[in-house]
Amino acid sequence: MTRKRTEKGESYPTHVEPAKTENPLGSQVTQVFVDQLPGLNTLGISLARIDFAPKGLNPPHTHPWGTEILIVVEGTLYVGFVTSNQDGNRLFTKVLNKGDVFVFPIGLIHFQLNVGYGNAVAIAALSSQNPGTITIANALFKSDPPISPEVLTKAFQVDKSTIDYLQKQSWYDNN
Amino acid sequence: MTRKRTEKGESYPTHVEPAKTENPLGSQVTQVFVDQLPGLNTLGISLARIDFAPKGLNPPHTHPWGTEILIVVEGTLYVGFVTSNQDGNRLFTKVLNKGDVFVFPIGLIHFQLNVGYGNAVAIAALSSQNPGTITIANALFKSDPPISPEVLTKAFQVDKSTIDYLQKQSWYDNN
Amino acid sequence: MTRKRTEKGESYPTHVEPAKTENPLGSQVTQVFVDQLPGLNTLGISLARIDFAPKGLNPPHTHPWGTEILIVVEGTLYVGFVTSNQDGNRLFTKVLNKGDVFVFPIGLIHFQLNVGYGNAVAIAALSSQNPGTITIANALFKSDPPISPEVLTKAFQVDKSTIDYLQKQSWYDNN
Amino acid sequence: MTRKRTEKGESYPTHVEPAKTENPLGSQVTQVFVDQLPGLNTLGISLARIDFAPKGLNPPHTHPWGTEILIVVEGTLYVGFVTSNQDGNRLFTKVLNKGDVFVFPIGLIHFQLNVGYGNAVAIAALSSQNPGTITIANALFKSDPPISPEVLTKAFQVDKSTIDYLQKQSWYDNN
Amino acid sequence: MTRKRTEKGESYPTHVEPAKTENPLGSQVTQVFVDQLPGLNTLGISLARIDFAPKGLNPPHTHPWGTEILIVVEGTLYVGFVTSNQDGNRLFTKVLNKGDVFVFPIGLIHFQLNVGYGNAVAIAALSSQNPGTITIANALFKSDPPISPEVLTKAFQVDKSTIDYLQKQSWYDNN
Amino acid sequence: MTRKRTEKGESYPTHVEPAKTENPLGSQVTQVFVDQLPGLNTLGISLARIDFAPKGLNPPHTHPWGTEILIVVEGTLYVGFVTSNQDGNRLFTKVLNKGDVFVFPIGLIHFQLNVGYGNAVAIAALSSQNPGTITIANALFKSDPPISPEVLTKAFQVDKSTIDYLQKQSWYDNN
Repeated sequence: MTRKRTEKGESYPTHVEPAKTENPLGSQVTQVFVDQLPGLNTLGISLARIDFAPKGLNPPHTHPWGTEILIVVEGTLYVGFVTSNQDGNRLFTKVLNKGDVFVFPIGLIHFQLNVGYGNAVAIAALSSQNPGTITIANALFKSDPPISPEVLTKAFQVDKSTIDYLQKQSWYDNN
Repeated sequence: MTRKRTEKGESYPTHVEPAKTENPLGSQVTQVFVDQLPGLNTLGISLARIDFAPKGLNPPHTHPWGTEILIVVEGTLYVGFVTSNQDGNRLFTKVLNKGDVFVFPIGLIHFQLNVGYGNAVAIAALSSQNPGTITIANALFKSDPPISPEVLTKAFQVDKSTIDYLQKQSWYDNN
Repeated sequence: MTRKRTEKGESYPTHVEPAKTENPLGSQVTQVFVDQLPGLNTLGISLARIDFAPKGLNPPHTHPWGTEILIVVEGTLYVGFVTSNQDGNRLFTKVLNKGDVFVFPIGLIHFQLNVGYGNAVAIAALSSQNPGTITIANALFKSDPPISPEVLTKAFQVDKSTIDYLQKQSWYDNN
Repeated sequence: MTRKRTEKGESYPTHVEPAKTENPLGSQVTQVFVDQLPGLNTLGISLARIDFAPKGLNPPHTHPWGTEILIVVEGTLYVGFVTSNQDGNRLFTKVLNKGDVFVFPIGLIHFQLNVGYGNAVAIAALSSQNPGTITIANALFKSDPPISPEVLTKAFQVDKSTIDYLQKQSWYDNN
Repeated sequence: MTRKRTEKGESYPTHVEPAKTENPLGSQVTQVFVDQLPGLNTLGISLARIDFAPKGLNPPHTHPWGTEILIVVEGTLYVGFVTSNQDGNRLFTKVLNKGDVFVFPIGLIHFQLNVGYGNAVAIAALSSQNPGTITIANALFKSDPPISPEVLTKAFQVDKSTIDYLQKQSWYDNN
Repeated sequence: MTRKRTEKGESYPTHVEPAKTENPLGSQVTQVFVDQLPGLNTLGISLARIDFAPKGLNPPHTHPWGTEILIVVEGTLYVGFVTSNQDGNRLFTKVLNKGDVFVFPIGLIHFQLNVGYGNAVAIAALSSQNPGTITIANALFKSDPPISPEVLTKAFQVDKSTIDYLQKQSWYDNN
């Protein structure tokens, strides 16, 4: 069978509603990846809407397979990313208002925090039909099965009771 | 010299304002491509805001180097794209309301028309830092220098006076 | 299932005959894309022979997924392409004689016109197994179903009767 | 200037010595990336040797721009990686002995722990000349400047004193 | 500095003349690679004309960085390629007449022999702006400096006098 | 069906044993390509262990679809590669001791010879899940079916009896 670019089926729009943010993080991501919009297959792009309650946080995470470009459509966000070890783990941050655009390079740890008085909304696009999301806290402390405490205590230089405590939290996946 | 992914300089946000749409097309595209945001270099993604007056049209065009994903943030758009000769030049269209998402595959001719009562606004993202835009009417009828009438009359099966008329229009580039 | 480069089946040659050019455009393209030569699968290249009657035109079109390199093997062609809006929609043209080589960058609108006394023949190669072809006139005026006249009149700044006239032509696909 | 694959300069070998592991993690990575071996430029591969003291840990980290394949050449390692949120943050682990091969997919959080009686040594190769390394603990708790405690307390659901404590550690970069 | 696709300079055509074939191989390749046509930069394609005297041979060679598609424009060629060790080093051959098209997958050893009564001419295109050519006999027996006879005698299971003899030939590079 | 990166199944390690080298070449390659480790699918990397008896040779070969990076883990190797015709078929060689790293660019002919007193062992990684191997002598002289002597005598400038002799050898595939 030959492999060809998809020219069909892209005509199914997907509707994105404002999301509820009444959760421990005060934020919610609504994804339009290839699983939600099959017409994205082979096309190398996807999109998400991110809703923030006041003080809502989209916690430190990476997209292992895509760069993210973000525009604020409502409110004020404090955003940042950390570069690699080889680049000195430098933190770049910025306060973004409505209409500001920012880019989070592929694979780097980044976050967004609502620092305005009301709700905030951002539209993000990603350079893959399947960029993936790895929320750092969830991958470390609520993986299935859990990571061995021997690994985590040594990695984070804390005692086992702290790791036990972290692994018992009911981590929320806001994606 | 070795070539490495850029990890620096992405921290400069670019601000995007609502654009004026008092032009013959009634629409205006505000690009955030690598020329506007150098931090996009090597990252394979870019963004645009599209403003529409009532009845405003983003006329048939292609992005030769990128797929476009679009979300309506205000108003109602009638959108469409045409597939290749090999696929039968099929036209896919849809009416999109606020929150609807649609994808225009790389290189295909597409358009967006405001069919609502008020203004419309869309956010589009493209799968390249430099996706390019080719507005069909402009490339055909206001290229510099003009395309030979012998080519255009034969291609469009019209007489020379029609081509002369088309080439004398003051075509507007809404990008 | 694992995915591997195809090493088999490439041994089936495809034969390309001189094509008849008695059609409204006076030109005919004979494609050897992956649909004609399945052995091209995964290999990223394809080929075409283009035959021109005197004054024959290969009308403005794009290849959305491949760059084209062309060599004239018989006759004289006047060829050209138009750059993107961002590059000023500049037109580059050249008269090519037997043995001349020219390149049409991926996604740009281009054309070839026989300006010699006899027939002309060119061999073109494309940087994709499935480069696609979009003949601009056909995609705009004979898509299935037709594009709304509201879009086309505004895009080309002509009245509806002209659009009606254009959409009633029996457009020829020379591919 | 034209861009060509490098065919020169690859003849400079780089020597990799067994590394000292007397550090808080008990492990040390010796990289042969494009910064160490310029001949790797454009070639899309790199290599590393990883030395482990008994109980030594290569702590949870990602390579944002490359997949890693690893072979144990001495000792016994307990290794694992965690999949993305979309895949349920599943943990895959294995005990590897001399001669065992394992792969860590691009961008996923992974770790290696020496669970044998003596030292352990692994050779790893990565699918990029510049794969990058992001040690999670270092990027979160010793970035320059530090990430705001407001972000970290909310992300990890701990109080500010715990974050203060973590940020005061003298984190070791074993790369 | 940002990196963009080249849209300029592609308008310089390169002229390809029939080549003389009075050399030990009876064949000559005229390349239009990026070194000859700088406008090919970033565009991923190139072209060559191959002239054959009667019994002329384009000897076993590879293109390390590109697949080749070939069309016979004059005469009759016997062509073939050999698959990899993993595929059993299978030989695929075919006799090609005027208008026949054949594909040589990237990196595989292949050859073309004129088996017709007169001259033969082929146009070949390659899926890279810089596909490279490695003529096997030349790379093995006239490299600069020569490969050690210890390597060659063992590799080809012949005695040193045979290798000496081969290395003293005045190998011809028909590219 | 949508296409996604594999996140599963990578947890099956493959075990690599020291290989026997009692064969005409005195060397043996143990591959961990996608056929041996299905979890490598889509991940773009693979690995091999190469064992050498004293004076053992890994004879001139190419990897048509991958660059190779190699580290010596035991013994002393004399290694080399030859550049393309366009680069002058230059030979680069080096003697590598334990811990030395060398890179063989994609598609170039290269070899490794044990020049130490005892056995030698190398770990090699390749920038493809399916890099392929083409042993030059085997592809030329034991292909199935054999290459026509008319091609080989002309290519190597030897008489038919030499080619007959070479084709009668029982060539060993050390992969």
